[in-house]
Amino acid sequence: MRRYNPDALRTLVAEITRAGGVPQSDAAILADALVDADLHGRSTHGVSRLAIYLRRIELGQIDPHAALHIEHHRPGVLAVDAGNGLGQVQAMRTLEHLARRAREYGLAAATIRRSQHYGALSYYCNWAADQDMILLATTSCEPAMSPEGGCEAFFGTNPIAASFPTGKGWPVKIDLATSLVARGNIIAASREGQALPTGWALDREGNATTDAEAALAGTVLAMAGHKGYALALMVELLSSVLSGSAIGPDIGSMYKDLDRPQNVGHFFCLLEIAAFMDTTVFRQRIDQTIDRIKACRPRPGVEEILVPGERSARNAEANRRRGVPLSPATARELDDLSERFGLTLRLREAEVAPTGALSP
Amino acid sequence: MRRYNPDALRTLVAEITRAGGVPQSDAAILADALVDADLHGRSTHGVSRLAIYLRRIELGQIDPHAALHIEHHRPGVLAVDAGNGLGQVQAMRTLEHLARRAREYGLAAATIRRSQHYGALSYYCNWAADQDMILLATTSCEPAMSPEGGCEAFFGTNPIAASFPTGKGWPVKIDLATSLVARGNIIAASREGQALPTGWALDREGNATTDAEAALAGTVLAMAGHKGYALALMVELLSSVLSGSAIGPDIGSMYKDLDRPQNVGHFFCLLEIAAFMDTTVFRQRIDQTIDRIKACRPRPGVEEILVPGERSARNAEANRRRGVPLSPATARELDDLSERFGLTLRLREAEVAPTGALSP
Repeated sequence: MRRYNPDALRTLVAEITRAGGVPQSDAAILADALVDADLHGRSTHGVSRLAIYLRRIELGQIDPHAALHIEHHRPGVLAVDAGNGLGQVQAMRTLEHLARRAREYGLAAATIRRSQHYGALSYYCNWAADQDMILLATTSCEPAMSPEGGCEAFFGTNPIAASFPTGKGWPVKIDLATSLVARGNIIAASREGQALPTGWALDREGNATTDAEAALAGTVLAMAGHKGYALALMVELLSSVLSGSAIGPDIGSMYKDLDRPQNVGHFFCLLEIAAFMDTTVFRQRIDQTIDRIKACRPRPGVEEILVPGERSARNAEANRRRGVPLSPATARELDDLSERFGLTLRLREAEVAPTGALSP
Repeated sequence: MRRYNPDALRTLVAEITRAGGVPQSDAAILADALVDADLHGRSTHGVSRLAIYLRRIELGQIDPHAALHIEHHRPGVLAVDAGNGLGQVQAMRTLEHLARRAREYGLAAATIRRSQHYGALSYYCNWAADQDMILLATTSCEPAMSPEGGCEAFFGTNPIAASFPTGKGWPVKIDLATSLVARGNIIAASREGQALPTGWALDREGNATTDAEAALAGTVLAMAGHKGYALALMVELLSSVLSGSAIGPDIGSMYKDLDRPQNVGHFFCLLEIAAFMDTTVFRQRIDQTIDRIKACRPRPGVEEILVPGERSARNAEANRRRGVPLSPATARELDDLSERFGLTLRLREAEVAPTGALSP
């Protein structure tokens, strides 16, 4: 994979997004969120998603001019209708409202309905950590996972995320799907003709399968059986049921249902650390906790105990220095979009020499 | 196991607790919380815990007269010092404060430090659901589980819980340890001389083991590997680090460390449903969600798809009708305590005839 200058990549993605009909400041938000995912090594939630977002705008299933409509509110609560706007843009707008309220009341929460796939949850959580806040975030997703005992796709991979500021230069970052594996892993195995590990998926009739094709026609399994099922339900109740968005199987598929909006729901709960304890003391306490975890006696064969968020921070540091790796297919897609919209920018101009040095 | 009238059991437990030095209204709170766990089929968190609580009071490690001290606050936030009071009592007092604030601001959160083992989290969550609120609850626990890659007990079984009101007569109840199994299961296997299933635990050196004794000297594993580890850390950061309580390995063991308070930390976040949407609409939406989950095509051999909280509600209904089952050891312990405190009440007077009918 070739590597690209992250600033130049961000500029290109923002320009394409703007040309795709998104107001300039909103295009900058989307570009920042997507490139951030690639920087952190999560290319599944990065610039590879730009094409489908723009396609859905073109088809009228995402409204790039949607206002954020607050339907219910209390001092610490917002119930938001995102009006089928871009998920990332409406989520960041909501967060800015919440941050103002959290500074006043100590915390604030929001539900967001009529939203879309909004990328990696940790983007929002890390934004909060940068401001000495803790964001708990959940989202519903298009159906992929059955309830325990069932074999129809009901839940999405329904992730839970939270980030916590530290004094280490990177936040503790928790961001996990409540499914055992992401559907993307099964798609990858299918593409490469490989068998799945046992326990990942069920076929259409609900039998365990290692056949990737059969698994794609069936459902992925929850992590840890009934516990993952319970957490996926908690995510669905907070994100979909409480928000007024579509629930479970009614959520539209981003790639397959091009004739209707997705109507995804999100839940945010933002805590200001200073409302609970002195922020400096909090940082000392979390740093000590990290140090003690890393100093635990390792299991045989384990070289280093990592804390959630540590690997991701190392990826980001390396990719900032060496450039963001993009697959040839994603790189081509971006240049095709740029050309289609009549832009002069091309990704190859942002390519970083393989020595790893970014030109100044 | 014999079964006992729940009201009489509650009265007995409250009387014993009061005789053990706890003010009357607080004794009633503890008795209600403990009997509620037995009613719901969770005897590990029920009246079998009374003896150790009273022993710790006797030793001065629990202060039955501790005031609830609010150390920091904002309109929506309380940071509470429980002063080594009874966990159940201080948790309920905190919740009552939070409920008043949640009605005004839409939500409210609290950390509680210098607390104790406080029983089943779902007791507090169900209390909130009864008032059309959603309580997200986490607690740290005495060390039992290693971080992923490590083999020293660092985290407790660090549970996450939330309940949601429905129109079904019972709440959706999510309440799960982030460990694969509770340490209690390993203690039980050890007592019965049985081998553990693979994947449950590590020995002292960090090797997988099916030997219950070796597992007790080692650590239990997180559910779903690194995902459970991440969730256990999230629980520790919210409950211990943010609250100012003891962290991880510094938390006292309830049964083993009789020379110091446990210093457990809890986290509560209470949401008023009416701040987000009409409560009647919420109930309709959650009831429809339950119905659709239960109507999913079942896997081969599965008779019924259950929703989290459903089995627990059925247990409670049956035990209210047929009496609460108690092990002979627990029954004897209660009668011994009653005798020791010079009370005339005895458990056998509350025994329910095996026909299942409670005398009126």
